[in-house]
Amino acid sequence: MTQTENIVGKKPTHIPADVPKEKEAEYARAIELVTRGLGRMLLFAGDQKIEHLNDDFGAADASPEDADPEHLFKIASQAEVSCFASQLGLIAKYGRDYSNVPYVVKLNSKSNIVPVSDRDPLSTEMVTPEEVLKFKQTSGLNIVGMGYTLYLGSEYEAEMLKEASEAIFAAHQNGMFFILWIYPRGKNVAHDHDPHLTAGATGVAVTLGADFVKVMYPKLETKPGDEKAESATPEEKGVAVAEAFKEAVAAAGRTMVIVSGGEKVDAEGFLQQLWNQVNISGAAGAAIGRNVHMRPVDEALKFCKAAAAIIFHGATVEEAKLILK
Amino acid sequence: MTQTENIVGKKPTHIPADVPKEKEAEYARAIELVTRGLGRMLLFAGDQKIEHLNDDFGAADASPEDADPEHLFKIASQAEVSCFASQLGLIAKYGRDYSNVPYVVKLNSKSNIVPVSDRDPLSTEMVTPEEVLKFKQTSGLNIVGMGYTLYLGSEYEAEMLKEASEAIFAAHQNGMFFILWIYPRGKNVAHDHDPHLTAGATGVAVTLGADFVKVMYPKLETKPGDEKAESATPEEKGVAVAEAFKEAVAAAGRTMVIVSGGEKVDAEGFLQQLWNQVNISGAAGAAIGRNVHMRPVDEALKFCKAAAAIIFHGATVEEAKLILK
Amino acid sequence: MTQTENIVGKKPTHIPADVPKEKEAEYARAIELVTRGLGRMLLFAGDQKIEHLNDDFGAADASPEDADPEHLFKIASQAEVSCFASQLGLIAKYGRDYSNVPYVVKLNSKSNIVPVSDRDPLSTEMVTPEEVLKFKQTSGLNIVGMGYTLYLGSEYEAEMLKEASEAIFAAHQNGMFFILWIYPRGKNVAHDHDPHLTAGATGVAVTLGADFVKVMYPKLETKPGDEKAESATPEEKGVAVAEAFKEAVAAAGRTMVIVSGGEKVDAEGFLQQLWNQVNISGAAGAAIGRNVHMRPVDEALKFCKAAAAIIFHGATVEEAKLILK
Amino acid sequence: MTQTENIVGKKPTHIPADVPKEKEAEYARAIELVTRGLGRMLLFAGDQKIEHLNDDFGAADASPEDADPEHLFKIASQAEVSCFASQLGLIAKYGRDYSNVPYVVKLNSKSNIVPVSDRDPLSTEMVTPEEVLKFKQTSGLNIVGMGYTLYLGSEYEAEMLKEASEAIFAAHQNGMFFILWIYPRGKNVAHDHDPHLTAGATGVAVTLGADFVKVMYPKLETKPGDEKAESATPEEKGVAVAEAFKEAVAAAGRTMVIVSGGEKVDAEGFLQQLWNQVNISGAAGAAIGRNVHMRPVDEALKFCKAAAAIIFHGATVEEAKLILK
Amino acid sequence: MTQTENIVGKKPTHIPADVPKEKEAEYARAIELVTRGLGRMLLFAGDQKIEHLNDDFGAADASPEDADPEHLFKIASQAEVSCFASQLGLIAKYGRDYSNVPYVVKLNSKSNIVPVSDRDPLSTEMVTPEEVLKFKQTSGLNIVGMGYTLYLGSEYEAEMLKEASEAIFAAHQNGMFFILWIYPRGKNVAHDHDPHLTAGATGVAVTLGADFVKVMYPKLETKPGDEKAESATPEEKGVAVAEAFKEAVAAAGRTMVIVSGGEKVDAEGFLQQLWNQVNISGAAGAAIGRNVHMRPVDEALKFCKAAAAIIFHGATVEEAKLILK
Repeated sequence: MTQTENIVGKKPTHIPADVPKEKEAEYARAIELVTRGLGRMLLFAGDQKIEHLNDDFGAADASPEDADPEHLFKIASQAEVSCFASQLGLIAKYGRDYSNVPYVVKLNSKSNIVPVSDRDPLSTEMVTPEEVLKFKQTSGLNIVGMGYTLYLGSEYEAEMLKEASEAIFAAHQNGMFFILWIYPRGKNVAHDHDPHLTAGATGVAVTLGADFVKVMYPKLETKPGDEKAESATPEEKGVAVAEAFKEAVAAAGRTMVIVSGGEKVDAEGFLQQLWNQVNISGAAGAAIGRNVHMRPVDEALKFCKAAAAIIFHGATVEEAKLILK
Repeated sequence: MTQTENIVGKKPTHIPADVPKEKEAEYARAIELVTRGLGRMLLFAGDQKIEHLNDDFGAADASPEDADPEHLFKIASQAEVSCFASQLGLIAKYGRDYSNVPYVVKLNSKSNIVPVSDRDPLSTEMVTPEEVLKFKQTSGLNIVGMGYTLYLGSEYEAEMLKEASEAIFAAHQNGMFFILWIYPRGKNVAHDHDPHLTAGATGVAVTLGADFVKVMYPKLETKPGDEKAESATPEEKGVAVAEAFKEAVAAAGRTMVIVSGGEKVDAEGFLQQLWNQVNISGAAGAAIGRNVHMRPVDEALKFCKAAAAIIFHGATVEEAKLILK
Repeated sequence: MTQTENIVGKKPTHIPADVPKEKEAEYARAIELVTRGLGRMLLFAGDQKIEHLNDDFGAADASPEDADPEHLFKIASQAEVSCFASQLGLIAKYGRDYSNVPYVVKLNSKSNIVPVSDRDPLSTEMVTPEEVLKFKQTSGLNIVGMGYTLYLGSEYEAEMLKEASEAIFAAHQNGMFFILWIYPRGKNVAHDHDPHLTAGATGVAVTLGADFVKVMYPKLETKPGDEKAESATPEEKGVAVAEAFKEAVAAAGRTMVIVSGGEKVDAEGFLQQLWNQVNISGAAGAAIGRNVHMRPVDEALKFCKAAAAIIFHGATVEEAKLILK
Repeated sequence: MTQTENIVGKKPTHIPADVPKEKEAEYARAIELVTRGLGRMLLFAGDQKIEHLNDDFGAADASPEDADPEHLFKIASQAEVSCFASQLGLIAKYGRDYSNVPYVVKLNSKSNIVPVSDRDPLSTEMVTPEEVLKFKQTSGLNIVGMGYTLYLGSEYEAEMLKEASEAIFAAHQNGMFFILWIYPRGKNVAHDHDPHLTAGATGVAVTLGADFVKVMYPKLETKPGDEKAESATPEEKGVAVAEAFKEAVAAAGRTMVIVSGGEKVDAEGFLQQLWNQVNISGAAGAAIGRNVHMRPVDEALKFCKAAAAIIFHGATVEEAKLILK
Repeated sequence: MTQTENIVGKKPTHIPADVPKEKEAEYARAIELVTRGLGRMLLFAGDQKIEHLNDDFGAADASPEDADPEHLFKIASQAEVSCFASQLGLIAKYGRDYSNVPYVVKLNSKSNIVPVSDRDPLSTEMVTPEEVLKFKQTSGLNIVGMGYTLYLGSEYEAEMLKEASEAIFAAHQNGMFFILWIYPRGKNVAHDHDPHLTAGATGVAVTLGADFVKVMYPKLETKPGDEKAESATPEEKGVAVAEAFKEAVAAAGRTMVIVSGGEKVDAEGFLQQLWNQVNISGAAGAAIGRNVHMRPVDEALKFCKAAAAIIFHGATVEEAKLILK
C-alpha cells in the first residue's frame, strides 16, 4: 500500500484567473468554508428526487422520515458536511427554515425513466447561472456554488459541454465555485467504471475549469487467468482500486476530486473505502447522498461525522468506526 | 381506514425563498385567496379546447351550452372554485366580462392528435412568463398564478423540465404562484397510474419549487391470485387506493397535491373519491374540468359547491351529496 | 333548412384584454374597417406564390394577366374586399403603388414540395411580429393585421402553436388584429375535412386568442347504405354540410370564422355555398384567392362584388348572381 | 423567335416600402451603380471556395493563376462587372487592396461533401446581416448588397426561408439591396431544371422581397416521339428554352432575374445563350463565376467585356464575339 | 526537389478589413508576437485533455510528469513556441502562474468517444468569443487569439461554419487573431488525407477569414502498378508529399498554413518533414502537441528549439538535429 503525501493540513487556494479581482475574496471565502482550508470536501448531494424519482425515498429499507423532503434539510443543517447540493426549487421551498446551510445549486437534472438503450442521456440546465445569481441576491441564502452533471460520450455531449463550460465561467465571474458531476455514459461507452476513462473524465473537469469533480469510483475487471488478482484478499482488492484511481486524481490537477458510490458496501466498508480514496488515491473527499438520507436523522449525523473524521481530521478507519456507534 | 390528521383549519403559508421581499405580500395574498388560508384548493381547469380539441364540448352527453366557450367563464365566475386555469388567448377573449375570476394562465398545451406510439409527448410554452406578466399588467385582470404540463419520462423531458423550472422561478420572482400538471408519459412509461411513479412525479414537483401539483389519481393493479384484493368491496378498494396515494402526498412535501381524474365515476362516486383523497391521502383538493363544464350552468354550480363542501368545509360525503340535489 | 339569426347588422366589437388601453382605439378601427362593423369579412388571400409556387399563376386556365404578381395588387386596390393578406416582401415590392389597400402580413409560408407522406408539415415565421411593426412604422402602409398558418396535429405542432400564440399576443399588444389559418395535417390526421375536427381547429383558434380563423369547409362522407344521404339532392347536401359546420362556428365563440375552399364549384355554386356558410352556419364570411386572381381584373372585381353582396349586404344568391353578369 | 420589348434603356428604380425614408437615397445609389440604371446586372459570383472547395481552383483546365484566391479580386477590380459577391471573411482578407470593387456579402454557404441522397441541403447564415452592417461601417469598403442561397423544397426549407426573408428585410432597412440564389433541391425535387419549377422559385424570390434572383437556366426534356423537338436545330432548341424561361421572368415581377449556368457551352455558345436570355426571355443579366476565374486575368476581362456588351450595351452576339478576340 | 521562395525574412502583416481602425495596432502586435514578423508560427496546441481524454497523458510511453496538467504550462512558459492554445477553463486554472505565455483560447472541443461511424462529428463552442473577451479583460492574461475546430463535410457542418465564421469576425473586431483547425470528417468523407481535399479545407479557411489554418499533413496513396511511386525512396516520397501539399498552401492565400501530425515519425523524421513543409510546400510552420508534452520538460524544450530553428531561423535539418542532443 503506497500512501500518498495527502496529509491533512492547510492548503493554499488557487484562485482561477476567470474570477475577477473584486470577486476574489468572495470566492476564497466560499472555498475556505467548504474545504475547511484543507483542500478537502464532504459533499451532501441531494438531487435524487429528480434523478431517482421516489426510489430512494419510498424504499423499503429507507427510514420513514425520508419520505418527507424536509428530512434532507434537517440532516444538512446539523451534519458535519461541507455543503448541501440540490435544485433551486427545493432549496427555495425549505431554505429559509435552514438558513445556516451553505447551498450549492445543481443546475440540471433528469429522471431515470428513459434508458440509455433507448437514447443517449441528455440533461440540460433547468435554471441558468444568471437565475441562480438572482436567487442568491434576493433570497439572502448562503449560496456558495453551482453544480452540473455532464454525461461524457453521450451523443448530446456537445450541448452539455457548452452548458457546463459557460456555467463554470459564470460562477467564477461571480465569486462562486463549481462542482462538476461527470459520468461517461451512452451507447458508445462500454465500461463506465474503467479507471482510465475516469481519468479522462477528471481531465475534462479541470479543462473546463471546475473546482471540484465528482466521479464514480472505478471498478477493476479481473482478467480471466490473472491468478494474482483472483486470489487477492478484499483488502488487497481495495488497495488495488485505490491505486488505479490515482490516475484520475493526477489528471484532475488543481481540480479537487470527490468520489461517489463505488461498490455497494455497508457503513464500515464505506469508511475503509473512503480512507483509501483520500489517503491512497489522494482524493479530496466524498459525496454522500442515499447512504445518508435513507437513515433517521441521528444515524445520518453519526455517519457524516465518521466520514468527516477521515476527511477533515485525519482519523483512521478504526477511529471513524467508533463514531458510528 | 386510516384518516390522516388533515383536518380543515388555517394553515401557515410558507413563502418560498425565490419570492423577493417586495413580492411576498402579493404572493401570500394569492395563496390565501385560492386556498382560503386552509392549504386547500378546488381548481377549475379549462385548458381542454386545445388538449382535447372539441371532444368534450361537442360531445353527445354534454350540455348544448358547452358548445360555446363562454360557458366556461359563466361557471368560473359563479362557482365556488379557487380559480380558473386556461390559456392566455381565451382569457383575453372573455376575461373583461368576467373580471371577478382569479385567473391562472396555463403556459403550454398540445392537441391530442399525435399519439405517444408515434412520438413521445412534447408540449412547450405558447407564451412566456414574461408575456403573462405583461398581460397581467396591461389587462387589469386578477391573474394570480401560472401553470404548465410536464410529461415526465418523455424523450423531450429535458426541454419541459427547463421550461417548467424557469417558469416557476419567474412566477415566484413576480409574486405569483405556480401549478404543475405532471404526467409520466412516453414509450418508456409502462404504467402511468402506478402509485410509486406518481410519488416520483410529485417529488419532481416540489424539487422544481411548484406550489401545487396536479396528478392523475393512481390505479391499483390486482395481482392474479391476490384473493384479498380480488374479494375487496368497492369501498375497500377506494380506501386502498387512497392509502397508496399517501406516498405521493408525502413525497410532495410543502407542495400541495391536487388530484385530477381517476376512474370515471358518477357525481356521487366522485364525491366519495374526493373525500378519500383529502381525508385519507391528505391531498389539498381536486381539479375539475369536463365533469363540470359538460353540465348546464346551474348543475355545474351545484357540483362545485358539493366538492367545495368537502374540501373547504369538512363536509361528509352524505352532506355533500345533499348539495347536488 | 334552418337559417341562423345571423342577420346583417352592426355588431359590437369585443376588444380582447391583451390589447392595452392606449391601443384600443387603433384595434377597434382596424376591426371596424375590415368587418364594416358587421362582424363580417371578405378576405383576399394572396400568399400562394410560396404556398403553391407558380401552379396557380402559370396555369392553363388562368388569365395571362395573372402571370405578373402585380395583378394581385390591381385587384386588391379596386375590389370590394376587406383586406389583402400576403407576405411582407411582396407587399414591400408593390405596396407603395397601391397604398389604399388595408394589408395583413402573413408571417409564415412553406412551399408545396415536401409532401406530408415524407415529413409532417412545418411552416415557421419568415418575419417576426416585431419586424412587421417596424415595417408598419417605417413604410407608411396601412397594415392592420397579421396572419399565420398552423398545421394542427403535425409532429411540429408545438413550434407552430408557440409562434402563433406569441404573434397573436404581439399583434394585440400593438393594436393589430390576427387571422389564424388553421389546417389539421400530418401523418396522424386521416380526415382533415371532418366537421368535428374542424370544430376542434376553430376551438384552438379562440383559445389562442385569434380574431379571425380561416378553415377549410368540411366535407361529409356518406356512409355506405345511408339511403337518405345517398338520395339527397345537391341542394340538400349543401344544407347538410352547412348544418354540420355549425359546430365549428359555435366552438370558435368570439373568433370570427372565415371559410376557404370547400368542394370546387363554379362561380354560381360558390355563391350558393357562401350564402349557406353565412346564413345557415353563421360564418363571418370567406377567404378568396385563386378563384379571384386567376380571372382578369374586371371579372375578378365582379366576383368580389357578388361575394360582398352576400356577406355585407344580405343579398340572396339570385341577387348576387346578377352582379356576376 | 419572339423577342421581348426588353430594350436597353433607363428603367425606373422601384424602391421597396421596407426601405425607410432616410435610406432611400443609399438604396437607389446602390441599385443604380450595379444596374447602370438599366435594370440589368452582370454579377461576378465568387463564393466557390466553400461551395465547390478547391475543385474549380485546382482544376486541370484552370489557369494556374486561379490557385491563388487573390486572382478573384484582380478580376473583380478590373472587369466590367456590376459587383463581386463573396463571403465576408474573404472580402475582409483582400478587400482593402481592391477598394474600388462594389461588394455583395454572401451570408451563407455549404461545402459540396454531403450529397442530397444522404441529407437534404441545409445552408445557414455564417454571418448575420447585423454583422455585415458592422463590417460595412468599420471597414470603409463599398458594400452595396447581401446575398443568400435558398434550397427550395429541402426538408430544411423553413429555416432557410426565415433567414432569407429576415435578411432581405434587414438589408432594405439599411439601404442595401439583396440577391437571392434559389435552387429547388432535395429528395422531393425530381427535376430541378424544370421551367415551371424555376418560375415557382422566382415567384418565391419576389414574394420574399429580393431585388435580384439568381436561378439555374432551365433545361427542356424532349418527350419520346416528339418529332418536332427531336429534329430541332441547336438554334431552335436555344430559342425554345429561352421562350420557356419567360414564365420565370414573368413570375419574378419587379425582381430582376439573373441566370447562372445552364448547359456547359464554350465562350461563344455562352454569349448566344446570354443574348437569348436577355432579349428573348427578358432576363436582367447573368451571373458568372467559374467561366471567368478559371481564365487568366486578361482573358477573363475580355470575357466579361463581351458579356457586358450584350447586357448593358445592346450588342449582338456577333459584336460580342469580336470582343473576345 | 523544388524549394519555394519561402525564405525566412520580415513579411508584411495584412490587416484584414474587419479589424476596426482602433484595434489595428493590437491585432498587428499579436500577429508580430507569434510570427516574429516572419509570417511563421510554431503553435503549441494543448487541447488534448478533452479531445483525447487521458490517452496521451496516461500513456505508457509518456513521461510521468505528463500526468499532471501543469506540465503543459511548464513547457509553454519556457519553450521557444509562438503561443499556447488550450481551453478557457484550463488556462484559468494555471494561467496566473504562467503569465508570460501568449494564450490562444480554443473555443470548442469534443471527446473521442462517439465514433464517426455512429454519428458525424459535431463540436460546438464551449465558450463564446464574448466570454473570451470578458476573460481577457478581467484576467490580465495575454490572450492574443482564439481557435476553433471545424469538421468540414460533417452533416453538422452548417452549425460549425456559422460558429467559426462569427468567431473569426468577433476576434478581428476586437483586435485578436484566429486559428482554424479544419478536418474533413464524416460518413461522406472517404479520404480525409487527400491533398486536393486538404486544399479545399485551407480554401475554406481563407474564405472564413482565418489568420492561420491548422490541417493534417496529406498522405499520398500509391496506385497499384505505379512502379515509379512504389520504388521511390523515403526521401523521394517525402518530397512528393510536400509537393502535393503546395496546392493547399496556394489555396489558403493570405491565411498562414500550420501543419499538424502526418505520418508518425521519430523526432528526426519530424524535423525532416517540417523542413519539407516549410521550404518545399511553403507552409508557415507546425502545430505540436503530443510530440512535445509526452516528453519531460527538458527534452520538450529541446524539441521545440529544434523545430523553431527550422521555422524561424532557416536552419537545415542537420543543424536542427544537433539541437536535440
